[in-house]
Amino acid sequence: MIKQLKKRPLNTALLTALVMAAGAASASELQERAKSMFEPIPQYPPVIDGNEMTEAKIELGKMLFFEPRLSASHLISCNTCHNVGMGGHDYLPVSIGHGWQKGPRNSPTVFNAVFNAAQFWDGRAADLAEQAKGPVQAGVEMSSTPQRVEDTLSSMPDYVDRFRQAFPGQDDPVTFDNMATAIEAYEATLITPDARFDQFLRGDISALNEHEQEGLALFMDKGCTACHAGINLGGQGYFSFGLVAKPGAEILPEGDKGRFSVTETASDEYVFRASPLRNIELTAPYFHSGAVWSLEEAVAVMGTAQLGAELNDEEVTAITAFLKTLTGKVPSVVYPELPPSTSTTPHPDPMVP
Amino acid sequence: MIKQLKKRPLNTALLTALVMAAGAASASELQERAKSMFEPIPQYPPVIDGNEMTEAKIELGKMLFFEPRLSASHLISCNTCHNVGMGGHDYLPVSIGHGWQKGPRNSPTVFNAVFNAAQFWDGRAADLAEQAKGPVQAGVEMSSTPQRVEDTLSSMPDYVDRFRQAFPGQDDPVTFDNMATAIEAYEATLITPDARFDQFLRGDISALNEHEQEGLALFMDKGCTACHAGINLGGQGYFSFGLVAKPGAEILPEGDKGRFSVTETASDEYVFRASPLRNIELTAPYFHSGAVWSLEEAVAVMGTAQLGAELNDEEVTAITAFLKTLTGKVPSVVYPELPPSTSTTPHPDPMVP
Repeated sequence: MIKQLKKRPLNTALLTALVMAAGAASASELQERAKSMFEPIPQYPPVIDGNEMTEAKIELGKMLFFEPRLSASHLISCNTCHNVGMGGHDYLPVSIGHGWQKGPRNSPTVFNAVFNAAQFWDGRAADLAEQAKGPVQAGVEMSSTPQRVEDTLSSMPDYVDRFRQAFPGQDDPVTFDNMATAIEAYEATLITPDARFDQFLRGDISALNEHEQEGLALFMDKGCTACHAGINLGGQGYFSFGLVAKPGAEILPEGDKGRFSVTETASDEYVFRASPLRNIELTAPYFHSGAVWSLEEAVAVMGTAQLGAELNDEEVTAITAFLKTLTGKVPSVVYPELPPSTSTTPHPDPMVP
Repeated sequence: MIKQLKKRPLNTALLTALVMAAGAASASELQERAKSMFEPIPQYPPVIDGNEMTEAKIELGKMLFFEPRLSASHLISCNTCHNVGMGGHDYLPVSIGHGWQKGPRNSPTVFNAVFNAAQFWDGRAADLAEQAKGPVQAGVEMSSTPQRVEDTLSSMPDYVDRFRQAFPGQDDPVTFDNMATAIEAYEATLITPDARFDQFLRGDISALNEHEQEGLALFMDKGCTACHAGINLGGQGYFSFGLVAKPGAEILPEGDKGRFSVTETASDEYVFRASPLRNIELTAPYFHSGAVWSLEEAVAVMGTAQLGAELNDEEVTAITAFLKTLTGKVPSVVYPELPPSTSTTPHPDPMVP
């Protein structure tokens, strides 16, 4: 008995060691597969072609990002719908804009947006600078005009100084285009490194537990990576929503034909940018319609609509657990001090109800 | 001649010294008078009776101050109308609230509000905690309810933990009242010390130039200090707007009878709290109606309406110059990271248009 008692722990230890070795081997294989498909978020913001990232420009961009006077009402700033304290978005199905109008689509997160191939759900803006010009002018969002923006910013001496510093050598630097360029420079700093998944990709296999590793394996095996790969696990290409089976109209409203409105090509009907999945835990509700609040449900919908594979509960749970390892370290943002309005600042035009 | 030439500089030096001494004497007298009427903003937040300022409570209060999910729409937070990057208010005549409704009065700055004797233009809230409960429930502002707030905050484990830490020993700390208490603790930290006027009060006579000193003298001589004295140069008492001559209806709308709505006393018709003048340079437009954008014009209106003294341009300019020395050092605010909504978080109710 004593011998047996002594042997049992030995055997158990051996067994555990064997299982761990096998686990380590397969975890290591999993890691190798993952490394071939994904890329970690870098520790430092990327370089943007044609937009030198100076401190003056980034700080100006931050002020503009938080500047509600870019909107006609003086109520709405970029941060209203892309809230840096709330996962870079607004936890709304669709955003509320000028005159309490509803936007047509769910607000995408600004975090890591710099890594997307193009911006908006239909990819209609090539980069963040082009993107930034959209909501400022959209009637349902900030409802301003380039002229109004330039008049507003020119009316405040502190802004004029800061545009001069951010765009040295320009005779008249307070322009709508430079506003967008500065906002792009700032937004490029809004990256979220060090997600547990990134630690895993960088070599720390223990950063993902077994269940999460199982979810990662399913994510690759089931074919999710056909659309959701690369640094942002999405954001790189356009795909038909409902490739295999169209979801119901509450999730895929008939009136919004997606990329068709950009390309006017029949094959682009109901085609949308594959959503980047970084920090997906922080960006409910899901899909361009913002119709689904539960991440589990969103995963299940994707299985049916895109893969034609009814995922069982365990698979959904495991994939969801994996997706939650994509939550990175949110940037620390010191609220900018915005200059006071002056006697020449255009008054707010709230389109009084 | 040589003697004279030698003497002349001597005389000039003597004269300058005499003038300077006289100036210093009168500046010093001015300073003594000012010290008897005003008080500098302290370097550190004040102690609040019955609300211990712990780090956990202040940090929770900051999160709640920036939390749009306290509003029914999930769009509006305290910071929307009391923007810490914009002088603690919103640069709007009256704020825009739930459903794009207009609030009845101009949003007062949150900066140094802790030093006011009571809150709101009519003083209907005794302190900041009581104040904080108002806009959250007001139909034209955030349009929520205590129950909805409690359900919302209870649905996010991070908030539950933080309420426990901020209110130790309480069985069920996630309450509407505790929300308000935490917000009060945070708001009490939003003070702006080190205005040039404070440096002057503390002994540095050169902190105000001659023109500004002249403005300060006029401010006291003309009687502005009857209502605008103390630490916040106002915010301590209630006075009839139009004591001597009622301003036009665009500045003093007939429908808003001020403190009368609180006391229902005839003598309180058109009585409002004397506006605190700290950072007044940053808080246009002026008056409870937010009808006046220029600080000079606001000073002139006050002269006519309250003092019955038509101030000439030079006096208005000098008083305005003095008022601009009341701009203090704005607190540095790191944007709080708010927890993600969960499956039990009440969905936004934007009162769809």
